[in-house]
Amino acid sequence: MDAMSVGSVEASCHRLRPLVDPASIAIFGASADPKRLGGVPISLLRQHKFAGAIYPINPKYQEIDGLTCYPDIAALPGPVDVIVIAVGAAEVVPVLRQAAAKGIRAAVIYAAGFAEAGDTEGIALQAELVRCADELGIVVGGPNCMGFGNLDNHAYSTFTAVFRTVPPPAAPRTVGLVTQSGSVCSAVYAAGRAMDVRFNLFINTGNEACVDFSEYLEYLADRPGTEAIVGYLEGLRDGVRFQKVAARMRDEGRPLALLKAGGSDKGIEAARLHTGADAGSAAAYRAVFERLGVIPARDILHLADIAYLSRFRARTSGRRVAILTISGALGALLSDLFTGNGVTVPTLSQSVQALLRQGVPRYGMAQNPVDFTGNIVNSHTFVGDALDAILASGEVDFVVLYASGFLIDRFAESLAQAAQKSPRMVAAIATGTVAARATLEEAGVAVFEDPARAAAALSSMACWHDNRRLYEGIPVAPAPVPSGAVLEFLKAARAADRKNFSGVEAAKLLAAFGVTMPCEVVEGASHRQGDGAELCIDIRNDPILGPVLRVSPAGDWPEALNDHALASLPLPRDFAIRSMKSLRGWPLLARTCDDAAIAAAGVVIENLGSGVLMLGSSFERATVMLWLSSRGQSKVAAVDVVLTNG
Amino acid sequence: MDAMSVGSVEASCHRLRPLVDPASIAIFGASADPKRLGGVPISLLRQHKFAGAIYPINPKYQEIDGLTCYPDIAALPGPVDVIVIAVGAAEVVPVLRQAAAKGIRAAVIYAAGFAEAGDTEGIALQAELVRCADELGIVVGGPNCMGFGNLDNHAYSTFTAVFRTVPPPAAPRTVGLVTQSGSVCSAVYAAGRAMDVRFNLFINTGNEACVDFSEYLEYLADRPGTEAIVGYLEGLRDGVRFQKVAARMRDEGRPLALLKAGGSDKGIEAARLHTGADAGSAAAYRAVFERLGVIPARDILHLADIAYLSRFRARTSGRRVAILTISGALGALLSDLFTGNGVTVPTLSQSVQALLRQGVPRYGMAQNPVDFTGNIVNSHTFVGDALDAILASGEVDFVVLYASGFLIDRFAESLAQAAQKSPRMVAAIATGTVAARATLEEAGVAVFEDPARAAAALSSMACWHDNRRLYEGIPVAPAPVPSGAVLEFLKAARAADRKNFSGVEAAKLLAAFGVTMPCEVVEGASHRQGDGAELCIDIRNDPILGPVLRVSPAGDWPEALNDHALASLPLPRDFAIRSMKSLRGWPLLARTCDDAAIAAAGVVIENLGSGVLMLGSSFERATVMLWLSSRGQSKVAAVDVVLTNG
Repeated sequence: MDAMSVGSVEASCHRLRPLVDPASIAIFGASADPKRLGGVPISLLRQHKFAGAIYPINPKYQEIDGLTCYPDIAALPGPVDVIVIAVGAAEVVPVLRQAAAKGIRAAVIYAAGFAEAGDTEGIALQAELVRCADELGIVVGGPNCMGFGNLDNHAYSTFTAVFRTVPPPAAPRTVGLVTQSGSVCSAVYAAGRAMDVRFNLFINTGNEACVDFSEYLEYLADRPGTEAIVGYLEGLRDGVRFQKVAARMRDEGRPLALLKAGGSDKGIEAARLHTGADAGSAAAYRAVFERLGVIPARDILHLADIAYLSRFRARTSGRRVAILTISGALGALLSDLFTGNGVTVPTLSQSVQALLRQGVPRYGMAQNPVDFTGNIVNSHTFVGDALDAILASGEVDFVVLYASGFLIDRFAESLAQAAQKSPRMVAAIATGTVAARATLEEAGVAVFEDPARAAAALSSMACWHDNRRLYEGIPVAPAPVPSGAVLEFLKAARAADRKNFSGVEAAKLLAAFGVTMPCEVVEGASHRQGDGAELCIDIRNDPILGPVLRVSPAGDWPEALNDHALASLPLPRDFAIRSMKSLRGWPLLARTCDDAAIAAAGVVIENLGSGVLMLGSSFERATVMLWLSSRGQSKVAAVDVVLTNG
Repeated sequence: MDAMSVGSVEASCHRLRPLVDPASIAIFGASADPKRLGGVPISLLRQHKFAGAIYPINPKYQEIDGLTCYPDIAALPGPVDVIVIAVGAAEVVPVLRQAAAKGIRAAVIYAAGFAEAGDTEGIALQAELVRCADELGIVVGGPNCMGFGNLDNHAYSTFTAVFRTVPPPAAPRTVGLVTQSGSVCSAVYAAGRAMDVRFNLFINTGNEACVDFSEYLEYLADRPGTEAIVGYLEGLRDGVRFQKVAARMRDEGRPLALLKAGGSDKGIEAARLHTGADAGSAAAYRAVFERLGVIPARDILHLADIAYLSRFRARTSGRRVAILTISGALGALLSDLFTGNGVTVPTLSQSVQALLRQGVPRYGMAQNPVDFTGNIVNSHTFVGDALDAILASGEVDFVVLYASGFLIDRFAESLAQAAQKSPRMVAAIATGTVAARATLEEAGVAVFEDPARAAAALSSMACWHDNRRLYEGIPVAPAPVPSGAVLEFLKAARAADRKNFSGVEAAKLLAAFGVTMPCEVVEGASHRQGDGAELCIDIRNDPILGPVLRVSPAGDWPEALNDHALASLPLPRDFAIRSMKSLRGWPLLARTCDDAAIAAAGVVIENLGSGVLMLGSSFERATVMLWLSSRGQSKVAAVDVVLTNG
């Protein structure tokens, strides 16, 4: 067994320590059958030689697999970090009480049939569970979960069989895995291990009755050694905590990648029925993820591939790729795939092309994609020289080399040397097996055996590098603690039974908090005869994610064709302008308004966002109609602020 | 060796027979080294025990691997179907002349450095090659190609090593593989064989100097036993022939799936530099593919997966799926994936749900996705009953069951029985290996080991079934043979040096061919004060694909936001209306015009298309501004027809 992880010591003051990093485990409802729920964790702990104490509990047995089996919790001989409760939903709470009486501080509950069932019985059972856990001061994982796998000290409180067949990772273990589904957790673990991803913790959160996804994320981020976290998410419960830990990961240059269910109506419905989580608006999640540098994964293998690439996170990347290939077709296909994933394939400068032309035959290509053609078979030195020249040129952010597996093997030394000389990302893409995989990876070269998977994962990392540089240090929305002035205003508004503030009145409201609209504020539609462009700014308070701002051109057509941009707050003016410019119809708007009007609009949007943040959770919705004139000024044509009830 | 295929006999009158289905092979530039270009085909023919004659040609050797090696072509003792020419570009033509003198009817040319090089030298070499082949009456595959692999009789004229390591398919071999890239051909072959796809022919077309992609397609479609064709395409040279064979495959219910490069500017550039093919407009190809029922593949594995699914083509499918799962999360993720691929996940009727509720626990789901939960582990009979009920309900077109690999194995018998009772598509989706794969496939159940790949491939087949029913029997654009009246008109127009015909004049022009605009034709913009909706109909003559019609709402915003639909001709009125209704902004248009106006617009578009087809290749472009009124009528507000020069 590996030494107990540094993490389990240093993070010991966190309340999740006994749950996630336990030194001793009891199993209530233990079974001698290693295929039953109460048997799997025991067999895993034995198989991987967990060094801590293991206490099976079941009056039916005297011993299981050489371990003393105890008749009940009271009979346990020593202190226990975590108890696995492998019984039905109705029996859970009494067991929890006995565990607390014995001084046990954490429990994992497998049973389903709590709130996710959606019926009165399940909801009541979960409410009772939460009450009981709070009262007893016991930390509960689940219910409706598969439990935890600790790859550092082999503490398994899980019934997933994946650890039985998939070999565990060697140290250093650096990738946290946290999901709201046990099946997805197992699938990502297996797919990641196939590429030797070094997971440290396997966490299946289930119903999150007592501990939510964001708290696990926080624990993982705090735990020494975690360099990346990958996860599966249906819906968040604590959006503020989530945004804080995600922004920290971003600012520390540690990848956080999430596969989020709920991209379709049916997906949202299924997620709600599955763990009771509200999947929320997919578009709002996308906006928040982008700001936070959270990498959106599109499926299980994509998530596993990003986990794999996190090993190379110290290598710089960005949205410009050079594609080197021995096949013109793969050059074309990879160009299509990278472009479709938001990465550009810039034409190389004449000087780099001239250098490449020394080894690329006349029927190859030197522009980018660079097609060495099959002729390169025996010229691995030239492949190295070409890589060096392109990496040193500064014209691209990362480089990929496509060849058949056996050719990648032949070029391995050149590839490794080029990568070692450069701080940039280098990847080998093969069809067929690459025997030199480990050597290449050791030298910092990522290796893929499918072009489409490679392009998807490398693009995600490239965009992440770009995003994290762009948004680094931009704070997340503060926790909704209204200021004194705001509280006073809200009190007066409530006393007067006021909820809606429109036009000039709403502008005055915001001005009262020091938030100015640096534009003339006019009422209603009187501006329409002017020339210029009209924008609609709409901010809604997402119950989980907080205020999300939407900017769209005003008018029937932009609305019908769904032209809009979303952003989370605060939104500094430069980013507000960036949002406006990201509209598909921006070129049309830009024709009719000038830079000064656009700059003023950026300030209006920034200030409106500040005002909304001050209103905190009292805020429901705000709308501003903004007129950008062709004569150097903007007008706030209408303001509408809606407060929450009560 | 298998018996010589029926195909090679029945298709014997086709000029490609000796090239693709040869009974004897000579190798010019033969090598005793099985790793060199001139050595690979010999070693493959020997390894797989090709029963026909093999004639190595090289004055350096007396014999190669027990075969007599001949000093030159003149010395060959017997008739030869195809000669592989494994020498450099400059030496090819003289060899071709010697081969023709010996009565050889077909040649495969490996060498690159012809037209794809893009320089004077290469273009001249290819022109000389074409002239020589025409003059000699010899059929040439390539140049710049990897050659052919015949899996029926093991006639390999290829230097790809994939046949050395990947085991060949057993009979019946039903899937043709034809690509413009040798690397892609090998990659698709290897990926397909991993799922036991039964390829019959492996064709790499290369530069297509003498035989183009469409002719190979036609040969494959004619060859008895071919049930599906998959391929990789950069650009077509003979669009008319392509559309004919694709429409035939569609009408015969045989899948044709193509991975098309050129979805990005860089992809188009790379394709042109690779094989000299013009990738054309990706949007025009998409429109033509949809009409023809050509399945668009997105990457190499997707293409291989569609080849795999073609085995189940006799099972009906369509755009409505039922998702059965043991994991709520996979239910949500598969819902997102299917929805994103154009498939719907309809809520099941109350009666089907009631039946499912008998076995689904209260914390599961019965709506669709149907979440059995992990509880189903021991209830494989119920899984069978649920499958039967859903398949028999007629509420969905196909069914997928997600579970871990070992559970799929446990459910295998129930799955197989349900599939055998139903004509509909049934698929098992696992994470992990499915041991019962062969048994399931035998019973008609497709098996996938990755959810995202499964959803992508099954959705493609579902949309194909839907499209082929929709478009079945609709003819492709006829070959451009103008009628007598049209020819007379064109002669007069050219004599008068007329190229453009606008407004009322253009309508009269069309009327002269019997094509009427069943609406008032007005000049210019005078209609604009009416209420209603304005559409722009634009038809351009793609040099390869023929006329492609584009319909879009008129106005700056729809144009900026790129709201349009494309369709190939002829376009019957119902399909014209379908195109209008597929516009994203259609709801906005529909608010302002009535059904009679829409119906009239459908007739205008159909007729305009007919007129354009009559003009044939003399036609360059036509534009119609169409006004759909809210008072029961349409107006043709402007017509503009442009003819080609000369």
